[in-house]
Amino acid sequence: MALIVQKYGGTSVGSIEKIRGVAEKVIASHQAGNQMVVVLSAMAGQTDTLIDLAMEATQDPDPRELDVLMATGEQVSVALFAMVVKSLGYDARSLLGFQVAIHTDHLYGKAKIQDIDRERIERNLNQNRIVTVAGFQGLDKNGDITTLGRGGSDTTAVALAAALDADVCEIFTDVDGVYTTDPNICPKATKMAFISYEEMLEMASLGAKVLEIRAVEFAKKFGVPIHVRSTFSDERGTMVVAETKDMEKVMVSGITYNKNEARVTIKKVPDQPGTASKIFDPIFKTGIVVDMILQNTSEDGLTDLTFTVPKTDFYKTMKLVSEVAEEIGAEKVLGDEDIAKVSIIGVGMRTHAGVAKKMFEALAGENINIMMISTSEIKISCVIEEKYTELAVRILHSTFGLDNEKNAL
Amino acid sequence: MALIVQKYGGTSVGSIEKIRGVAEKVIASHQAGNQMVVVLSAMAGQTDTLIDLAMEATQDPDPRELDVLMATGEQVSVALFAMVVKSLGYDARSLLGFQVAIHTDHLYGKAKIQDIDRERIERNLNQNRIVTVAGFQGLDKNGDITTLGRGGSDTTAVALAAALDADVCEIFTDVDGVYTTDPNICPKATKMAFISYEEMLEMASLGAKVLEIRAVEFAKKFGVPIHVRSTFSDERGTMVVAETKDMEKVMVSGITYNKNEARVTIKKVPDQPGTASKIFDPIFKTGIVVDMILQNTSEDGLTDLTFTVPKTDFYKTMKLVSEVAEEIGAEKVLGDEDIAKVSIIGVGMRTHAGVAKKMFEALAGENINIMMISTSEIKISCVIEEKYTELAVRILHSTFGLDNEKNAL
Repeated sequence: MALIVQKYGGTSVGSIEKIRGVAEKVIASHQAGNQMVVVLSAMAGQTDTLIDLAMEATQDPDPRELDVLMATGEQVSVALFAMVVKSLGYDARSLLGFQVAIHTDHLYGKAKIQDIDRERIERNLNQNRIVTVAGFQGLDKNGDITTLGRGGSDTTAVALAAALDADVCEIFTDVDGVYTTDPNICPKATKMAFISYEEMLEMASLGAKVLEIRAVEFAKKFGVPIHVRSTFSDERGTMVVAETKDMEKVMVSGITYNKNEARVTIKKVPDQPGTASKIFDPIFKTGIVVDMILQNTSEDGLTDLTFTVPKTDFYKTMKLVSEVAEEIGAEKVLGDEDIAKVSIIGVGMRTHAGVAKKMFEALAGENINIMMISTSEIKISCVIEEKYTELAVRILHSTFGLDNEKNAL
Repeated sequence: MALIVQKYGGTSVGSIEKIRGVAEKVIASHQAGNQMVVVLSAMAGQTDTLIDLAMEATQDPDPRELDVLMATGEQVSVALFAMVVKSLGYDARSLLGFQVAIHTDHLYGKAKIQDIDRERIERNLNQNRIVTVAGFQGLDKNGDITTLGRGGSDTTAVALAAALDADVCEIFTDVDGVYTTDPNICPKATKMAFISYEEMLEMASLGAKVLEIRAVEFAKKFGVPIHVRSTFSDERGTMVVAETKDMEKVMVSGITYNKNEARVTIKKVPDQPGTASKIFDPIFKTGIVVDMILQNTSEDGLTDLTFTVPKTDFYKTMKLVSEVAEEIGAEKVLGDEDIAKVSIIGVGMRTHAGVAKKMFEALAGENINIMMISTSEIKISCVIEEKYTELAVRILHSTFGLDNEKNAL
């Protein structure tokens, strides 16, 4: 007998019929002798409906009240799910964030889970009940409802799995696992059987939309194995687990890309202490997230400074930087929206030499120019011209031996 | 400075625009120096949408989970209301049943309020906040969400007013007060300035849909003055208060009617001990509510037994009664759906003699036959042929001096 925490996203519970399908899956696992805790998101579309209502009420909704509003989405899902399970002849019980209780800090809209009471869930499990918990929501110290922000239900599921010492946390989604790269642009992409938390974190932050970063961080911290799999099939998906020796045998595990950044270059910046902070302070203050920063070696006391920001913040950033550039006496500011970042990821990089060289050569072999490079222990990212994105991904996928010939078109 | 509890029904908060209208009314009263507690129902239509979802899930939804589902309706209303108030520049705070907390028994779907914590509301009021409370919902001893049943938000408002020692509980609705009778069938109906709790209870149970019975019972028990008034005007409505000497000066305060009952007669029932229970036990067991019961004096050891049930239960009742009638050897069973009950109500009946005589004579004067009569201390009801309902109401309204000539068509 295992204790399994499962999480189903909005599309998986998007209609009563789909909820019934999920209920049957859960009951089958319960029948097989497992204790089941099922975390649900709001029904697909429901969250948008609620946001529309809030926006009609006011353009700047009070964060506390927005959380009270948004939390109703998951409340509807778990109530309907429990009803369906009971109608199929099995005992079930829905629990909301405040009932579990899931304690969070008080940052409305992006609250962090602080701790979870396991008593009420365990009591219900011991009564042979299927327990369903509203994802995405918690309760702060003042007794106010909080929500965890985008992808919060993943975090709820992993946190519950950690609190309950669950054997596995199964995240059901509309894809059937984590792939070596995006199958839409690389038909030879392979579903991974295993991926380490660290690799998954890099994959998530670089644009793979399978799992929310915070959920993976939580899983890593508490050693919760995550099984990412499809709601609509019984096939095994991808296990996200702690790094193993086996993983290091592979040089690169996955390739990601991101077309949502833009590049800003300030030419001939006087290279003096305090210049960087003069440039970046106004950007940081407006909450713009700067990703890569690259500063060339100084020549004649002048240097070029290049960095990337989200495309949505490009014009705002150009305006801010142009003002500062004039003030500090830099030559000019250049902007480029037509860039992409391709990255290779793998814990194997720690033990294999020459990975970067192999990447650069592969890109060069296709005449793809590298504009910027950034690296971490298990990742190398290159900024290239946007139009080469798909080509770069495919060539790197092949270079690092990830191609699954069976998947070829 | 007064402490005012206001309650707005589903049509009053049926859209963001209407919620804004309500917010402006509340803010005006807050600005005038009053402490405001605002109880809201679910937005019009929302409750039906939720019930439809539940019915799609299963024809017999689990009561506990149905309450979890239904409670989201009011949660949406209070969150949106608080957002709107804040967007208009005033501080507001929504509180759900569990946050207040409103403690109830555990009868899902028709829970009764047991007690209410005043601390959290008072703390918010003392911070100069407008407090809005989700109507209709509470929390039982196990920490489960309960709902109070139809009209539950009225009860929430009155119970809050009692718990907080509020100066008045204002129930805002789509009519502008309590009328001497239904203005739709009697154009000379007059809005009452005052009505006693007792009279209101009789009015409510006899078909006037302004206030829910349980709310009035609560108000009576705790001496909470209720002001029934229109959301869409600033005019004074009707005060529901404890009986005063002045009220006794009027013989009859209001006329009601009810077309939703049917009559069942069992002819020639052997008049033996235990017969009545043989007849009524199967009816009570199925939860059918019997209203009036009339048994003629026995003749030759046989008696006729007549009673009324809701029209919706008529066929079921006829079936049950026919079975018993055969068993006990009664002659036959007659049924009649074309009946109506007209009633006159007034605490003045206690001190005025001859009220019944006056009623019977008025009906006889129009050749309206009285089939059944039942009386209480402050009410006389007559069952008549349904087709005479409107005529009977108008003639009684005039007979007891309630006509407002200004309102005549």
